[in-house]
Order: sequence, then structure tokens, then C-alpha cells
Amino acid sequence: MRSRKRLVGVVGSSLGTPEQLALARQVGSLIAQRGAVLLCGGMTGVMTAAAQGAQEAGGLTIGIMPGADAAESPPNEFIEIALFTGLREARNYLIACASDGLIAIGGGYGTLSEIALGLRLNKPVVLLASWQFHIAGEPVQVPVARTAEEAVEQLWQLMG
Amino acid sequence: MRSRKRLVGVVGSSLGTPEQLALARQVGSLIAQRGAVLLCGGMTGVMTAAAQGAQEAGGLTIGIMPGADAAESPPNEFIEIALFTGLREARNYLIACASDGLIAIGGGYGTLSEIALGLRLNKPVVLLASWQFHIAGEPVQVPVARTAEEAVEQLWQLMG
Amino acid sequence: MRSRKRLVGVVGSSLGTPEQLALARQVGSLIAQRGAVLLCGGMTGVMTAAAQGAQEAGGLTIGIMPGADAAESPPNEFIEIALFTGLREARNYLIACASDGLIAIGGGYGTLSEIALGLRLNKPVVLLASWQFHIAGEPVQVPVARTAEEAVEQLWQLMG
Amino acid sequence: MRSRKRLVGVVGSSLGTPEQLALARQVGSLIAQRGAVLLCGGMTGVMTAAAQGAQEAGGLTIGIMPGADAAESPPNEFIEIALFTGLREARNYLIACASDGLIAIGGGYGTLSEIALGLRLNKPVVLLASWQFHIAGEPVQVPVARTAEEAVEQLWQLMG
Repeated sequence: MRSRKRLVGVVGSSLGTPEQLALARQVGSLIAQRGAVLLCGGMTGVMTAAAQGAQEAGGLTIGIMPGADAAESPPNEFIEIALFTGLREARNYLIACASDGLIAIGGGYGTLSEIALGLRLNKPVVLLASWQFHIAGEPVQVPVARTAEEAVEQLWQLMG
Repeated sequence: MRSRKRLVGVVGSSLGTPEQLALARQVGSLIAQRGAVLLCGGMTGVMTAAAQGAQEAGGLTIGIMPGADAAESPPNEFIEIALFTGLREARNYLIACASDGLIAIGGGYGTLSEIALGLRLNKPVVLLASWQFHIAGEPVQVPVARTAEEAVEQLWQLMG
Repeated sequence: MRSRKRLVGVVGSSLGTPEQLALARQVGSLIAQRGAVLLCGGMTGVMTAAAQGAQEAGGLTIGIMPGADAAESPPNEFIEIALFTGLREARNYLIACASDGLIAIGGGYGTLSEIALGLRLNKPVVLLASWQFHIAGEPVQVPVARTAEEAVEQLWQLMG
Repeated sequence: MRSRKRLVGVVGSSLGTPEQLALARQVGSLIAQRGAVLLCGGMTGVMTAAAQGAQEAGGLTIGIMPGADAAESPPNEFIEIALFTGLREARNYLIACASDGLIAIGGGYGTLSEIALGLRLNKPVVLLASWQFHIAGEPVQVPVARTAEEAVEQLWQLMG
């Protein structure tokens, strides 16, 4: 039988600046090159760019979609497996839970929720041009990367 | 880019009689032969047999796991992509929602819930040695198949 | 401090025949008279009638709503606490899980899913003019009541 | 019929410093005094203190519990309505979605996820000795309060 695949989540803005999109595409490509499956929210922006990168490198791409069908939430064109959940924003939790590790690129509040849920579930999370957060008296040390290569390398080390 | 894959759910008993397991393995094989991805609950019984059949035929198998990790809900050995949800029985809804069509084989109450949720979401559902149900004044006409071939053929016709 | 309240779910058709609605209103009233909170899907038909009965008897009514807000899924007028979930049909699971026991009245596939999920979670479930189901070789003995009084009395005995 | 109740969520650390617990109890009390229902995660720390405050002021308290039953996640003693979800961390989403507004006090990553999900869902959120976060080029202006009174007053103004 074939061995079980590692799943790596890429979360980020549904818009994304050109820089973020370029990072996402590189990250997606590097994830696929290392043999992992790309998991993402299946929509636009960073999600499209990451899926494009992964697919261009021959990898499998899975979108955990917010809507119950393609009419409600059309998967971007680089999603090979669209899992329609109908759970809308609750699907952010699913992405965090199903991923073996997460890379966050840019992002809005949805991305912040995915980062927080990932950390809450003790998943390795690497931030790339993304959120920074701190709380009085509680030092927060989430790994930050400056390049796509660094992000993927750091994540792989954390995933073990 | 590669085209999006069709997802077919096989739901059924986590135990399963020898007859049900044989049916599930055949169904899994036929689903893979038609190029669809097998979606299931990732656990034992019918879920294992269907995933085995699909994998033997070269298909991709996805398990929508009830637990948050492999310690909590170990995927059967024929699951290539294990999506850990941590949602326990609520994951039954996800299987119904994410599948383009469903085949139910044998089954307990969990299977009955997946059949009902599939029908509620207007998914094609074919029953194979599974639940029968009726309600006064409301004739229920869920397709019933007698063989694995018939089940898959009927489902494909319904999925269009 | 005040003691924790017992929660009883009433599930059933969003349409409902006049007989089913009358039964639901009586059931809601009897649940409130016994001091339990009425939990339901918060929408129309059996859900409205049960909430009306409970509120007329001075009880608290909670609707586990499918939509994310009142615009998406308007609670019926007898819902005092509307919990908007945004989970659509996945909220059926929540009703089953959060209830200490369930009474099903009439119903479509959504109701069947709630019955099945309740049984799957080992909740006491009593059927009143609702679904019947059986599976070869697996005798299913879900309690059936003929009147509202009988349903509530049976449920209370099962809940202990 | 009775009018529908406003639901206000209080999220925060399951531990909590003495200062945070004192704030939470005051916040709970003020919420109840304004006639709203207190929604929280039903567990320890800030959740207990907020529920205690609300109950002492005669208010209704609802706990959206992570576990499927009291054995898995025991509600704190000031929870009058315990909604067992079995969804574990995914219940954070439910708290955010079901609340008309949220106050965050202290907190770990779970709290951060609830803040982020609340903001994602366009809910009014007020921070009290809680997380701070920012992202390059995207100014984040979440209201911050210094006292319990200020937090509740700000939230009520935002809820309109």
C-alpha cells in the first residue's frame, strides 16, 4: 500500500500583494517538491498562488472550501481536490487541525484565526510577512521567516 | 492545470459482515477505475475495505477522520490522505457534504446519519445491503442496488 | 448558584401537518412543565410549535440556528435564545449532541439525521409519528410514542 | 411572547491572573445587569469568573462546551445552560458566531482565535488586558478598554 501523505497548510489573504502572491507560489512549489500535499482554503489570493505553485511542481492540492458547493464558493483553478464543507469560517479550524504544519503569508482576520488555531492545537506554524502579536507578560515566540525557502525549511525542521 | 477530481463517499459499518466487506472492496475498486477519489470515514470495517479496493485499483483515498490526530483516530492502512478533523461524529456531515455522491453499505446509526445528511443535501445516494426507512404519508424512494457494479453504475447515472 | 438545566431537543419537519404541529406544541408545553429547556432548530413548522408550547408554559427556548445571523435564518417568534451557528445542516449534529434526550415528530431527512445522530451518541430518542427504519439482521428498537404525554413520559424515564 | 435575548460572549484565559479574574467577574456582572445573556466557553479561569459575575447579578449563563458531555468537559459551577458540542477547539468559532459582541480578557491562543474569528465575522470586539496584534501595512484598530465598565460601555455602543 502507499504511505500516508504529509499535509501542509498555507493560509493567507484572499487578496494578497504581488509580493505575498510571489511568496505563496514559491512556498507552494517547495511544499510539493518535498512530497507533501498542499492544503489551503481553496479560494483566491494567497490560496490561488500557493495552489498554483504546488501544482506546477507536480503536487496534489486540496481546498477546504467554505461553501457547500462550487456555486457558493468556487475553488480556484489549481485545486485538484475541493472539499466542500458548508461550514464557512468554521472551516478555518479544519485547515488548522488537518495540517501537519502551517505557513501563514500576509492575511486578514481569517488568517489570524488560522494561525491562532494552529498554535492552539500545537501545530508548527511559520509566519512569512504576516501577523505579529503579543500579550503583556506572555512572550510569544512564533517562528518568522524572511523567504519562502526559509519558511519551508523552518517548518520541516519543526515538523520533524 | 489538472482538472478537479470527482469525490465519491462510501459510508458503512465500522465492523461489517464478510459480505459487506467484499461489497465495499469491489465498490472502492470500481470508483477508482472510473477515476473518482474515494472519500470515507477512514476507520475500520467498510471504510477499510473500500479504501483497500480503491487503492488496489490505483485510486486516491481520503479519510475524513473523527479524531484530531492519528493517536485519537488511527487511519486504516489504505488511507493516503488522512484529514484529521477533531469533530468526532460531526465529521459525518462533512463526508456527506464533500461527496458528489454516496454509496452506503450496511451500517449502524452513524451510517444512517450519513445517508440522511446526504439526502438532505440533495446528494445522489445508493443503498447496498443497508438501511431501509419510511415515514407515514411520505414515500421514500432511495435507490437500492444489489451488487457493487449496480451501485456504482446507478450512482454515476445519478451524478450525471 | 443555580443548578444546571436539563436540555431536551425536539426535532421535526419544517412544514408539519396540523396533527404534528399540535403534538409538537403539547410536547413543548410538557417539557417546560417538567422544568427542562427546549432545544430545537429554531425554524418553522414543528420547531415553531414546540417553542410556542414551551414558552406558553413559561419555559426557556433555545434555537440552534443554521445561519450565521437572523437575516440568513430568522428564528421563529417563540425562540428566546437564538444561537446562530452558520453551520447550516451541520447544526443538526449540535442539536443531537447538546440535548439530554430527543423527541422526533414527523420530519424529513434533516430530522432523520438528527434521530440517527442522537442514537449514535447514545442519547435517549422517542419517535412520535416519525420515521421508521430497519436494517437486515440488525433489529432496531427505538421507542415509539402515540401521544405527546407518552413521548415525554417515555423520554424522562429513559433520561433517568 | 418574550423578546429574543442579546448574547454577549466573554472569552479569555482558562487560567487567568487574579486581576483578569476580577475584571471578568465585573464584566459578567455588568452584562447581566444590562439584560444580556452571558455566553462563554464554560470552562475555568476567565470563563468561571465571568459566569459567576453574571449569575450573581441574576443573569443567564450559557457555556459552549468543547466536550460531548460533562465527563469530557465539566462545566464550571456558574453555567446554567451547558451546550455540549463535542467539537473541541472548533467550538471557539461557535462562540464568536453566536455572540452579538465579544469582550476578550487576557487569554492564550484559543482566545486569540476567538478574537480573530469575531473580527472576521464583523462582530464588535473589545479587548481588556488582552492580545495586541498588527500586520505591516494594515493598521488594526480593535477597541481596547482599561476597566470592566469601559469594556461593557464600549461594547454596547458598538452593538448599537
